[in-house]
Amino acid sequence: MRENKVKSIWKAGGAVVNGWLAIPSSVSAENMAHAGWDSLVIDMQHGLVDFSSAVPMLQAISTTDTVPLARVPWNLPDLMMKTLDAGAYGIICPMINTREECEEFVSNCRYAPIGRRSFGPTRALWYGGADYAKHANDTLITMAMVETQEAMDNLDAILTTPHLDAIYVGPADLGLSLTGVAAADPTHETTVAAIKTIIEACKRHNIVGGIHCFAPAYAKEMIKLGYQFVTLGSDNSMLANMAKQTVAQMREGAQAAGAKGLY
Amino acid sequence: MRENKVKSIWKAGGAVVNGWLAIPSSVSAENMAHAGWDSLVIDMQHGLVDFSSAVPMLQAISTTDTVPLARVPWNLPDLMMKTLDAGAYGIICPMINTREECEEFVSNCRYAPIGRRSFGPTRALWYGGADYAKHANDTLITMAMVETQEAMDNLDAILTTPHLDAIYVGPADLGLSLTGVAAADPTHETTVAAIKTIIEACKRHNIVGGIHCFAPAYAKEMIKLGYQFVTLGSDNSMLANMAKQTVAQMREGAQAAGAKGLY
Amino acid sequence: MRENKVKSIWKAGGAVVNGWLAIPSSVSAENMAHAGWDSLVIDMQHGLVDFSSAVPMLQAISTTDTVPLARVPWNLPDLMMKTLDAGAYGIICPMINTREECEEFVSNCRYAPIGRRSFGPTRALWYGGADYAKHANDTLITMAMVETQEAMDNLDAILTTPHLDAIYVGPADLGLSLTGVAAADPTHETTVAAIKTIIEACKRHNIVGGIHCFAPAYAKEMIKLGYQFVTLGSDNSMLANMAKQTVAQMREGAQAAGAKGLY
Amino acid sequence: MRENKVKSIWKAGGAVVNGWLAIPSSVSAENMAHAGWDSLVIDMQHGLVDFSSAVPMLQAISTTDTVPLARVPWNLPDLMMKTLDAGAYGIICPMINTREECEEFVSNCRYAPIGRRSFGPTRALWYGGADYAKHANDTLITMAMVETQEAMDNLDAILTTPHLDAIYVGPADLGLSLTGVAAADPTHETTVAAIKTIIEACKRHNIVGGIHCFAPAYAKEMIKLGYQFVTLGSDNSMLANMAKQTVAQMREGAQAAGAKGLY
Amino acid sequence: MRENKVKSIWKAGGAVVNGWLAIPSSVSAENMAHAGWDSLVIDMQHGLVDFSSAVPMLQAISTTDTVPLARVPWNLPDLMMKTLDAGAYGIICPMINTREECEEFVSNCRYAPIGRRSFGPTRALWYGGADYAKHANDTLITMAMVETQEAMDNLDAILTTPHLDAIYVGPADLGLSLTGVAAADPTHETTVAAIKTIIEACKRHNIVGGIHCFAPAYAKEMIKLGYQFVTLGSDNSMLANMAKQTVAQMREGAQAAGAKGLY
Amino acid sequence: MRENKVKSIWKAGGAVVNGWLAIPSSVSAENMAHAGWDSLVIDMQHGLVDFSSAVPMLQAISTTDTVPLARVPWNLPDLMMKTLDAGAYGIICPMINTREECEEFVSNCRYAPIGRRSFGPTRALWYGGADYAKHANDTLITMAMVETQEAMDNLDAILTTPHLDAIYVGPADLGLSLTGVAAADPTHETTVAAIKTIIEACKRHNIVGGIHCFAPAYAKEMIKLGYQFVTLGSDNSMLANMAKQTVAQMREGAQAAGAKGLY
Repeated sequence: MRENKVKSIWKAGGAVVNGWLAIPSSVSAENMAHAGWDSLVIDMQHGLVDFSSAVPMLQAISTTDTVPLARVPWNLPDLMMKTLDAGAYGIICPMINTREECEEFVSNCRYAPIGRRSFGPTRALWYGGADYAKHANDTLITMAMVETQEAMDNLDAILTTPHLDAIYVGPADLGLSLTGVAAADPTHETTVAAIKTIIEACKRHNIVGGIHCFAPAYAKEMIKLGYQFVTLGSDNSMLANMAKQTVAQMREGAQAAGAKGLY
Repeated sequence: MRENKVKSIWKAGGAVVNGWLAIPSSVSAENMAHAGWDSLVIDMQHGLVDFSSAVPMLQAISTTDTVPLARVPWNLPDLMMKTLDAGAYGIICPMINTREECEEFVSNCRYAPIGRRSFGPTRALWYGGADYAKHANDTLITMAMVETQEAMDNLDAILTTPHLDAIYVGPADLGLSLTGVAAADPTHETTVAAIKTIIEACKRHNIVGGIHCFAPAYAKEMIKLGYQFVTLGSDNSMLANMAKQTVAQMREGAQAAGAKGLY
Repeated sequence: MRENKVKSIWKAGGAVVNGWLAIPSSVSAENMAHAGWDSLVIDMQHGLVDFSSAVPMLQAISTTDTVPLARVPWNLPDLMMKTLDAGAYGIICPMINTREECEEFVSNCRYAPIGRRSFGPTRALWYGGADYAKHANDTLITMAMVETQEAMDNLDAILTTPHLDAIYVGPADLGLSLTGVAAADPTHETTVAAIKTIIEACKRHNIVGGIHCFAPAYAKEMIKLGYQFVTLGSDNSMLANMAKQTVAQMREGAQAAGAKGLY
Repeated sequence: MRENKVKSIWKAGGAVVNGWLAIPSSVSAENMAHAGWDSLVIDMQHGLVDFSSAVPMLQAISTTDTVPLARVPWNLPDLMMKTLDAGAYGIICPMINTREECEEFVSNCRYAPIGRRSFGPTRALWYGGADYAKHANDTLITMAMVETQEAMDNLDAILTTPHLDAIYVGPADLGLSLTGVAAADPTHETTVAAIKTIIEACKRHNIVGGIHCFAPAYAKEMIKLGYQFVTLGSDNSMLANMAKQTVAQMREGAQAAGAKGLY
Repeated sequence: MRENKVKSIWKAGGAVVNGWLAIPSSVSAENMAHAGWDSLVIDMQHGLVDFSSAVPMLQAISTTDTVPLARVPWNLPDLMMKTLDAGAYGIICPMINTREECEEFVSNCRYAPIGRRSFGPTRALWYGGADYAKHANDTLITMAMVETQEAMDNLDAILTTPHLDAIYVGPADLGLSLTGVAAADPTHETTVAAIKTIIEACKRHNIVGGIHCFAPAYAKEMIKLGYQFVTLGSDNSMLANMAKQTVAQMREGAQAAGAKGLY
Repeated sequence: MRENKVKSIWKAGGAVVNGWLAIPSSVSAENMAHAGWDSLVIDMQHGLVDFSSAVPMLQAISTTDTVPLARVPWNLPDLMMKTLDAGAYGIICPMINTREECEEFVSNCRYAPIGRRSFGPTRALWYGGADYAKHANDTLITMAMVETQEAMDNLDAILTTPHLDAIYVGPADLGLSLTGVAAADPTHETTVAAIKTIIEACKRHNIVGGIHCFAPAYAKEMIKLGYQFVTLGSDNSMLANMAKQTVAQMREGAQAAGAKGLY
């Protein structure tokens, strides 16, 4: 079975530089796949992506050696299994708040006797190789999102779920739950403290910690804290930022008229 | 009929700041439409876009007041008419090398008695308004691309084509034709000279000049020369640049190991 | 954040004239969006629409000031959140039979501390505006469908669910449950009585009542009863009716031959 | 090979009641296919349809015994051949102005030795049957559009093109060319006279005449004149009309307030 | 309502020869629909198909008299109801392990008073006919998958679920659960014994038994055992096998060089 | 720039075993790409594929080292350039009957100074590499189809077109033109003689000969004749054959009843 380079980087003690796909297009996905990310997450939760657009996006990523991952929108057995069958090499599940939810999540992603994943890889065989069935349980990654007060309360229980590989912090939802404010790259002390608490717990339980970031500087801070999987914004945010910044550069020094256009 | 703001900016002596869409997705198109561009060109030539993806992209742009334009892949009557029927407010036609080709292009975009555009606006009525038929010939923009030695040789003949609104310089093809090198934001003196020759001819014939650029600084130079329509890269190039730059920032200072990942 | 005109009409005591989209096409959606409806519901339950077609339909509606709403196929947290992230300004949830189900529905559509909606608006920011996060809970509409005997039994409990805006009556399912017959614009006295019972309860609890109708005359009766949100058929039913009526007009007086065609 | 019922109706001296598809959706197409039309034309010219949407629309029509036809956007050999390969039972070609153009059109639709259609039916075999190759030239319909002054000038030459089955009048373009006004169901005497001239010429040359209409009354007039193929509006126009009429019925008698909604 | 030929074959004591669709394309679906299968199952579980691709596939199958069925990916009320509304004539539900799950499955597919299926057939009316509502409960097929040890333990309870028509054995998952090995056309004695146990129980309870097979020889064995619904591989497996076999035939006798190509 | 293995095999004197894609799906394309073909041709002529489906198919092929080629439906500059920009490594052009047509075809596929291909690779850069512009003219393949009497008459003129790499024989069209019969793997002596004439001419002019076949035995005969590029049927024909053969095996020995099903 094809190696999962994310796991290899983790094993070597490194940090994965992860990109994020919210645009439902195999063209933007292939563009991103050539940018040098270690892995790319197809976001089926907040991204405008569902299964029918995820399949060609997985194909597009597979033209490179970037590792294809996916975030599903909820703890859904059907979609997790379908997405793995379609060749994703790992699943991020949002809103895991209890040990029971985490066990169900992991079970959805593992074949018997570990879990209840139904057998029928299709594209996964093409991407992973003929011995997929044998190695899938050991190769595919499960990442549970910790992003609420309830999850914080159950942190140790969640982190000790058998066959869970990693957790993924969603700082916006975490901040919203803890402080009432959803912020990217949060600086609120309560949220920052939680982010530290989580990675310490991860280390204690030998679980990899991942976190959604925007600015490289923030992401590097997170790596210093011990996070080994950092996301930098998304295709949508990068495109919007670059476009707005370019337009702003063009408008600079231009006469501020009522109509747009550059005078 | 809804105003064509590109024409209004030109009339006021301003320069249009134009964005470029090569990703066949209504999501990236709507993202770009919110970035502040005066207009957006859907590139059906070198973009990975054809008519079936252009329609929802036109809809996406129409959620804002950004002017929707399209570049067709060749001097094709069918596709020009279809794209105008779908609500584009102007057409850029590549590889116009002779007066005859330019006349055919303009004819494809104008109703009788000026041209041979077939009557049957559909989405154009929804976007433009009920009096579309009456004002279409005066509102829609025709831009002919000048991008070869042959076009340079026929420059005055092309520029004096009745009902042509503007020309659009394709510096890469122009450089390829004149110097054997296709460069973005070209600095080769022969190509630069041609770019100046073209805008001087435009002024002489009272035709608007447009040009495809990448860097804002270069585009501003072009505006100084008299160009009134400048494009800044494309969604694809902006996304790729931002992604590569972000990854590079993350890799900076990281140990250069055989495997990727950030150590 | 962009105003929700449906709420404004309700606040002013008016009744919303709502259209219904069952054809999975952004073209028919934009066509309908220009017909003068106050709002349009994308039907992801009985319509042939899922998330991947709903996104361009939401974009198509957003080219006008018609309010975009969606009916999800079940009380699904993932799809509700995705559809709101994609810019729907309200969700209709079918088959709400108990207070508990209604609370879960409302929770799926509201950010903390009210509910459990995960944070990550994408297209919603483009459509709603930069202050979406601040006003979403107050702006977006939740409508629970009352359409079974069980729901009738729990009517008061359902109607007093905090942060529920309105209920929506599905007369076909309601009739099927109460009388064994699924009829459009029902006249069966049991179903009619239930429809009256529901709107009286709505008034008692200061909740808006909505109902699915076909004929304008029936819908006007419902408005007289106090319903403030009436749907008139769907794109599919209107197209089928108009087409059949047109064909019938053509066949009128034509010789009834074995083969079709007009003799 | 499956019978072409349009030809059978013509042979029996009847008039074909034809529907028109401009919405690029297999769902609206199947809806229309159940309305009783003798045939349906997929409009790849002014409709928002291209080949990729035409294929599932052809499949949708094929679930019924309605005859699937297509209008291509121009005299394009590639698209005509592709559309026939995909199972269309006839092609309408717009803007046929000369005998030469008409001969090229017919040649594109016929196998050697009559024409130059390339051999490779795919879906056409599934729809037409295993003996498609043998009977295609006799079964498939070619209809040339007569819609300009130039075509009127060349009427006899066009109508005597070998293997041409029918002509199709586009009254809007014809009116635009002859009178400067594009009108549906035209009443301008010049256009009406031309419509009569055309059908008389058709009769003289034993060619079927068809015409694009909107109102049944107008279409019946055309049948009285001798036209044997009449179109009634389109899916888009029927949906828009029905929706607007329904909304208007709802607004009737409602207080005309600044905001919409029904008071 | 259109007859369900699968039920008719069963009633006559015959065995249904079923094909399987995992490629999300209406073209491959129509191709398969012309191959002579009694029925075709659109696999929304392990196939790369979701609702948006299933709709045109259902249309494609409906161009023939092959019976359209679907396997959903999980016991999901929303997707079952949507798929039936879209015209599927039966649903296969995977991973039914308990009587309770089976009752919920059947309830999702039946209108009141038997079940909780919501009323709103759309395409189902076009395909099934105007009296669909009346006959749907008796015409549509429910097949529960028995494919785990737990299901074996609850076999009699599952098989006696009211209004369940048939069970469908998934030998790969069954083998995985019982023996730790997922094999197609299994020969492991434990799995073979279970396959026999299941069909005996089916006979006892007067329920039809179906099973997923690959080789015709194996499928014929299953029919001899009493199975009345056998699947033969899938579009994906047949295409892959035929392609690999063809390439192998070409490479035979060719010089085994480092590069590919036929020397 | 990534090597074109088709050219390498030719250079080494080998024969390319080529597969053919007529199903517009990236899933069937990726399936085929794993079957061991040296190259795959996306058939945009008789296949049910256009540009919008070709792009994800090109991506799917690019997940393997199978060389992606495309047949365009006609000698169209726009589509050839778009398809090359999308990453095809060679173009097959049908119906090349004269030297002039062949020169135009080749010109469409080559950058200046050889041809008129417009500059703007997008996906081609991702697939081919950063030095694409430099090596494209030498790497990309042009194959002209010889398939009519007229082409036979102009054979030497066509074969000596500068920068043409190969010709591709379409036996069905060739037979239709020469003998009035379109047959796969033709045995008619006139067609067979022409096939021999063509390959002899190819050898004389040092041009590679390719031919469309179905049976491996026939293809091997062609290789013996000197053809270095043989196609074996298509995805559609292989799927149909395998499905029909499987159904036939199941029906064998079954009682031939009026209804289908296996008794």
